[in-house]
Amino acid sequence: MESGQRVTMDREPNRLSLVESAEAIRAGKLTSQRLVRACLDRIEAREGSIKAWASVDPENVLRQAHACDSGKASGALRGVPVGIKDVLNTFDHPTQMGSPIYSGHQTRNDASCVALLRAAGAIILGKTITCEFAGTFPNVTANPLALERTPGGSSSGSAAAVADFMTPLAVGTQTGGSVLRPASFCGLVGFKPTYGTFNREGLKFAAESIDTIGLIARSVEDVSCVTSVLTGRHDYVGTPLDHSPRIAVCKTHLWPLAQSETQECLDLSAAKARAAGANIVEIDLPDYFPELTAARGIINDVERARSLAWEWAHHREQLSETLQKTMVSGFAIDDADYCSALALVARARADIASILKPFDIVLAPCVNGEAPVGLHYAGDPSFQALWTLLHLPSITIPAHRGPNRMPVGLQLVAGAGHDDKLLAVGLWMQQVAKIGLDAR
Amino acid sequence: MESGQRVTMDREPNRLSLVESAEAIRAGKLTSQRLVRACLDRIEAREGSIKAWASVDPENVLRQAHACDSGKASGALRGVPVGIKDVLNTFDHPTQMGSPIYSGHQTRNDASCVALLRAAGAIILGKTITCEFAGTFPNVTANPLALERTPGGSSSGSAAAVADFMTPLAVGTQTGGSVLRPASFCGLVGFKPTYGTFNREGLKFAAESIDTIGLIARSVEDVSCVTSVLTGRHDYVGTPLDHSPRIAVCKTHLWPLAQSETQECLDLSAAKARAAGANIVEIDLPDYFPELTAARGIINDVERARSLAWEWAHHREQLSETLQKTMVSGFAIDDADYCSALALVARARADIASILKPFDIVLAPCVNGEAPVGLHYAGDPSFQALWTLLHLPSITIPAHRGPNRMPVGLQLVAGAGHDDKLLAVGLWMQQVAKIGLDAR
Repeated sequence: MESGQRVTMDREPNRLSLVESAEAIRAGKLTSQRLVRACLDRIEAREGSIKAWASVDPENVLRQAHACDSGKASGALRGVPVGIKDVLNTFDHPTQMGSPIYSGHQTRNDASCVALLRAAGAIILGKTITCEFAGTFPNVTANPLALERTPGGSSSGSAAAVADFMTPLAVGTQTGGSVLRPASFCGLVGFKPTYGTFNREGLKFAAESIDTIGLIARSVEDVSCVTSVLTGRHDYVGTPLDHSPRIAVCKTHLWPLAQSETQECLDLSAAKARAAGANIVEIDLPDYFPELTAARGIINDVERARSLAWEWAHHREQLSETLQKTMVSGFAIDDADYCSALALVARARADIASILKPFDIVLAPCVNGEAPVGLHYAGDPSFQALWTLLHLPSITIPAHRGPNRMPVGLQLVAGAGHDDKLLAVGLWMQQVAKIGLDAR
Repeated sequence: MESGQRVTMDREPNRLSLVESAEAIRAGKLTSQRLVRACLDRIEAREGSIKAWASVDPENVLRQAHACDSGKASGALRGVPVGIKDVLNTFDHPTQMGSPIYSGHQTRNDASCVALLRAAGAIILGKTITCEFAGTFPNVTANPLALERTPGGSSSGSAAAVADFMTPLAVGTQTGGSVLRPASFCGLVGFKPTYGTFNREGLKFAAESIDTIGLIARSVEDVSCVTSVLTGRHDYVGTPLDHSPRIAVCKTHLWPLAQSETQECLDLSAAKARAAGANIVEIDLPDYFPELTAARGIINDVERARSLAWEWAHHREQLSETLQKTMVSGFAIDDADYCSALALVARARADIASILKPFDIVLAPCVNGEAPVGLHYAGDPSFQALWTLLHLPSITIPAHRGPNRMPVGLQLVAGAGHDDKLLAVGLWMQQVAKIGLDAR
């Protein structure tokens, strides 16, 4: 009981990581009820300032925790609470998608990832606030590290809830940079696996050919654990690398967007990795890769317009002006141009596979810089969106601080399907380069 | 008015093709009310034997047709009825997915393709019966050409309704062969575009990485017209080929499954195409392609299991034994084997792109043979599933008859993204090789 007492005495349970929580519950050192109560208490104390949650149902949560403690649940995540971005279906919570069109909207079923989390014993704490339809129009969530700053988007509530110790982990989605950017802005780990890794049944699509479900947590171990659950693979990370990490540093053609803190973050992290034994090579991307920015815009707008065709027909006036503009653009784009954009991206996906072959991972800038001031703008997705478009797995780790002491994330990227390698190097890089979250 | 009178006098309106119907309405020679009434009358007369519909709402349909005739609708499909497979959301019809779990289930919105069809003026006639969750467990639908035979599946109702002149066109989905096989068994044109062409928002997934929305109609012109609507491309087929079609004949490693009528269908169609001026070359597929059959099985089972995780947790006993077996298999497959299967398929997709480059299209067997007797088995998807797995666009045209005078389809396949070319050659092939439907 000693280490359990230490765990539960030293820190409030809501400050434990997901893996720590699951282990403490499994070992009988912590009850699910105590854990979720601590999370609910934190939410009650802080939600007025943070606004991370679209829906929380304390009674339901406590009932599930009680059932869990009574031995009615099993699985790797037994009794551990998680948050779910409000664009994923949940049979016992509304799914409101950050839009008044879906106010109070209740689905019959759970999204695949939600059902799989529950099957592993997790307790759905609630739905986390999203930008309108996982797009760019921000919602009300504040950054827990500095309330006047954006938490990033579109998985705004997922990041804010995890950063504020309301939940150890939340599920998000990324079409441009909606998992990694908020994770970076809030000093967290954000993981977007290879496109298609987490089944998307029950997800409201933004741009179908790039939408990817991802995870936000406070450690690489936590996202690895949930990746194991969602894929059914016992140990997703598997054995550590048997060689020094082979790392490509890639500033990308977007480098001029990088503020000084992002430049420092990449340079310092590469230096730390080299000092820790990694082989580091700087690489450039093919000459035509800057064209991917425009191609991404076309794909994004066309697919968003088509996905929201019903909302456009019936509730146009309830869409934000921002989204209306995207949809007008999407419907106006010639389908032949859309097909050309898809073809260019297909070519880039094939080329990047060859380029990345000699390396375990790529180190790249994750964000322009610190979270900007103001809640009216969720930040620039450019640095995240490039790799999302290529369907590659990516992870961010908080690795630096900007001029305002706000965190700046580093981005690690691997070849498609090499999520296990990405997480393995991510664990290594977390030890080498991670900065700590300030205690709050 | 003369040609309009001819159209409406010679044939009952429900026997017109979709393009003919739309033109007659646009020209003022036919009203939407008269057209949908003819379709509803046909349904009333024949539905007892055919069982193609999961839901029809005559009052709602007639109200929409009246609004259309009063000038309240516009668009390329103004006033034309279509059927929607019952795995696609419709805000004004239940979406029951061929499963008692979703009995009476009503969604808040339309699927993307449904909303886009309505925006083009189409009237949703109703929901067509599907095999359980678009899988292999058959529903109650009979083949209109021979009631004791299967219409194929899983888009059983879509094919039966079109073959029986209840609707000119119906939307289906294909994960293995669920559009082309029922189209072939019912003597129809079935078109599955390149993976991702028709937006899947609002579709209940079967196996997400291969699920494709497609169309069943009585002519290539009709599926081309609706492809234009769903992609927003004014004329999807565009200009006809400026050269003799370059056609590869590919029997595939599955050829031993082909019954004599399918062998004859391919040989005769190739001979007709050659006589009509096409360049024909027989090709083989790479040696490892037979391994795709097992890879497809793995992908199908794993993804189906994950997609139905909520139904598995809450309503297992309401799933058919067939589907339960698939899900047990899917959950038991090692994720690493699933990833290997995906990698093999990715390799095959890259290889097939090079192989198909010198050709406009491939001619391939579509089905094992005629629709089998009995409604307990919806037929073998092998010949369709190979190309679906490769994400290639495919179309079937009724081109032969078997020993029981039942139709046998020919399959045309093109490279990914070359749907326009496929439809252009499909039109040509329809003239060269199509057999007529018996008047019923």
